[in-house]
Amino acid sequence: MRHSLEASDAIFASLLVALIMLVAGAISPALAQEALPSWNDTAAKTRIMDFVKATTTQGGESYVAPEDRIAVFDNDGTLWVEQPFYTQLGFMLDRIKDLAPQHPEWKEQEPFKSVLAGDLKGVAKSGEKGIVELGMATHAGMTTEQFSKIVTDWFAAAKHPKTGRPYTEMTYQPMRELLDYLRANGFKTYIVSGGGVEFMRPITEKIYGIPPEQVVGSTITTEFALVDDVPVLRRLPKINFVDDGPGKPVGINQFIGRKPIFAAGNSDGDYEMLRWVTAGKKPGFAMLIHHTDAAREYAYDRQSAFGKLDKALDEAVRRNWLVVDMKADWRKIFGWE
Amino acid sequence: MRHSLEASDAIFASLLVALIMLVAGAISPALAQEALPSWNDTAAKTRIMDFVKATTTQGGESYVAPEDRIAVFDNDGTLWVEQPFYTQLGFMLDRIKDLAPQHPEWKEQEPFKSVLAGDLKGVAKSGEKGIVELGMATHAGMTTEQFSKIVTDWFAAAKHPKTGRPYTEMTYQPMRELLDYLRANGFKTYIVSGGGVEFMRPITEKIYGIPPEQVVGSTITTEFALVDDVPVLRRLPKINFVDDGPGKPVGINQFIGRKPIFAAGNSDGDYEMLRWVTAGKKPGFAMLIHHTDAAREYAYDRQSAFGKLDKALDEAVRRNWLVVDMKADWRKIFGWE
Repeated sequence: MRHSLEASDAIFASLLVALIMLVAGAISPALAQEALPSWNDTAAKTRIMDFVKATTTQGGESYVAPEDRIAVFDNDGTLWVEQPFYTQLGFMLDRIKDLAPQHPEWKEQEPFKSVLAGDLKGVAKSGEKGIVELGMATHAGMTTEQFSKIVTDWFAAAKHPKTGRPYTEMTYQPMRELLDYLRANGFKTYIVSGGGVEFMRPITEKIYGIPPEQVVGSTITTEFALVDDVPVLRRLPKINFVDDGPGKPVGINQFIGRKPIFAAGNSDGDYEMLRWVTAGKKPGFAMLIHHTDAAREYAYDRQSAFGKLDKALDEAVRRNWLVVDMKADWRKIFGWE
Repeated sequence: MRHSLEASDAIFASLLVALIMLVAGAISPALAQEALPSWNDTAAKTRIMDFVKATTTQGGESYVAPEDRIAVFDNDGTLWVEQPFYTQLGFMLDRIKDLAPQHPEWKEQEPFKSVLAGDLKGVAKSGEKGIVELGMATHAGMTTEQFSKIVTDWFAAAKHPKTGRPYTEMTYQPMRELLDYLRANGFKTYIVSGGGVEFMRPITEKIYGIPPEQVVGSTITTEFALVDDVPVLRRLPKINFVDDGPGKPVGINQFIGRKPIFAAGNSDGDYEMLRWVTAGKKPGFAMLIHHTDAAREYAYDRQSAFGKLDKALDEAVRRNWLVVDMKADWRKIFGWE
C-alpha cells in the first residue's frame, strides 16, 4: 500500500510539473519557438538577444523590471517602407485627386496643380510650405471619426507604387518578429513616428500588434464641439506637435512618461531619441536600420529625400549603436517573399 | 491496493482542482472576493456592477471587447481630496516657501508676497494670472528628472492641512476599489486630470495602481537639449496643453486614441468628457461624485472655488448619469478610517 501510494505520488508530481509548464507556456508561448527566424545568424541578432537576455535575467546587474521595459520604434523606414515616398504622402496625393472635383480652383493653384498633373518634382518645388498645405487640405476639416474612416478605407484599397501590394504588406518581417520577441520578453512596444498619429492608429494593431494607445506621433490641433448637440472632435488645419528629431524624446516623455530602454530608428530624425535612450547609467539599446538592399528593397542613406541617414550613421559608429545591414542581416525582408 | 490507488487518485484530483483554482485566482483575484466592499448596497453600486456585467458578458448585446474597455477618471475630487485646495496648489505654496531664500524680490512681489505671508485670499486676488505665475516659478526651469525628484520628495513629506495625513493617503477607498474592480474585469484604467501630468506620474502607480503611461493631464512645454553633451528634457515656463473642460476629450483622443466606455468625474471640468463618453449608440457610462459629506470629508458643489459642480449636476439628472452621493453611497471614505 505504501508502495502504491508512492507510485501515484510520482504520477501526481509529473502531472503537476506538466500543468505548471502548460500554464507557463500560455504566458510566454513565443519563447518556445526559435526567436527572430527572418534574421540571419549575424552579430546584429546576437547583440539584440544578448541585450534582451541581460535585461530580463533576474538577479543580473542589467536586470530591468517589466514595467520599465519600454521599447520604441520609428515607423517610416524602420517598420515599413518609406520609398519612393512616405506612405502618408501617398495618402495625401490620392486624397487630393479624390477631392479635386470639389475644388476646381486647384487646377491652377500650386502645389495642387502639380499633384493633379502627377508631377512629383513640381510638388517637391513647393517645399515644406507646399507639403503642409497638402497636409491640411487632406487631414483637417472633418471629425476624428470621419478621418479614421477615410484612412481605413484608403489602406484597404491603396497599393504601393513599386510592388503593387497593399501598403499594409510593406512592413518588414524581421521587425515584426522583433516586436513579437520583445513583447514575449515583457517589453511594451510603442511606435514613435514623425507621421500623423491618427493616420497610423487605425492600422497599427493589425499590422504590428500595437494598439492605438501605444502610438506616439505628430498631431494637428483638434477641438471639442457640439454639432446639433452631438459631441465631436474636429480636426483643425493647424499643426499641434511635430514628433520628429528633438520632438521624439519630448513626445515620449509627454505620452509615455518613462524613458525607454530600447529604441529603433533609421534616420537623422531618430538621432535625439537614440541619444536620450542610451544616456545615463541604466541599460539602453539603440539600433539603426541601414537600407542597403537595392535588389530586395531600396538602398539609400546620406542623400535621400525620405529617411536621410547621415549624422546619426556617424554617431552610431562612434557610440557603438547597432547598425542593421538589411542586406546582410535579414534573411527575409517582407512576409510575402 | 486498488482501493488505495483510488484514494490517492481522489487526492490527486482535488489537488489538481486546487491548483487550477490557484492559477485562475492569480489571473483574476478580485473576482474571488466581494466587489466594492466600501460601497453601501445602494442603487449606485448596483448600476456600476450592472454596467460592468453587461459590457463583459460575451454574447450580450452590450458586450465590449477587452481592448475597448477604457475607463477614465478625473483625479482631484474624484480619486483624491481637492479641499481646502488642490494638492498641486499645496505643492506650489510649499515650493515657493522653499525657493524664497533664492528670490529676495518675492517679498515685495505679488502673488509671491501673499504666499510667503500665508495669505491665501491675497493669492486668490491675483487671479488666474497669479496662479500661472506661481505655477511657472515652481514647475519650470529644471529637467524632467529633477522635477520628478522634487515631486517625489514633496509627497514623502507633505501633509494634508486638515487631517495631517500624507496627501497620498487622502485617496477615496471606494474609488480605489472601483479601479481594482474594473481592472479585474478587463478594463484599462486611466487618469484624465486637469492637474499637471508630471506632478501625478511619480505617485499614481503607488496610490492607484495606474502606471505613468496611463496618466493624461495638463502639460508645460519641454525641450530636448544637450547639456555638456548629456541629453536632457528641460521644462520651460510655457503652458503646452490644458487638460480640462473641452480639453479632456481632446487629451483622451490625443493620448489614448480610443473613446472610453466609462468615465468618472466630479465637476463642471468633466462635463465635456462625460458628454463625449456617453454619445453614440455604443455603451458608455458616466458618473459624478457628489461631495455631500461634511462630517467625513467636505460638502460642496455649485459655489465651490475648487471642483465647482453646477452645470454638470443639472445635466447628470437630465441625462441619467450616475450621481454618487458620498454620504449615502460610501460606507467608508478613506482607507485609514
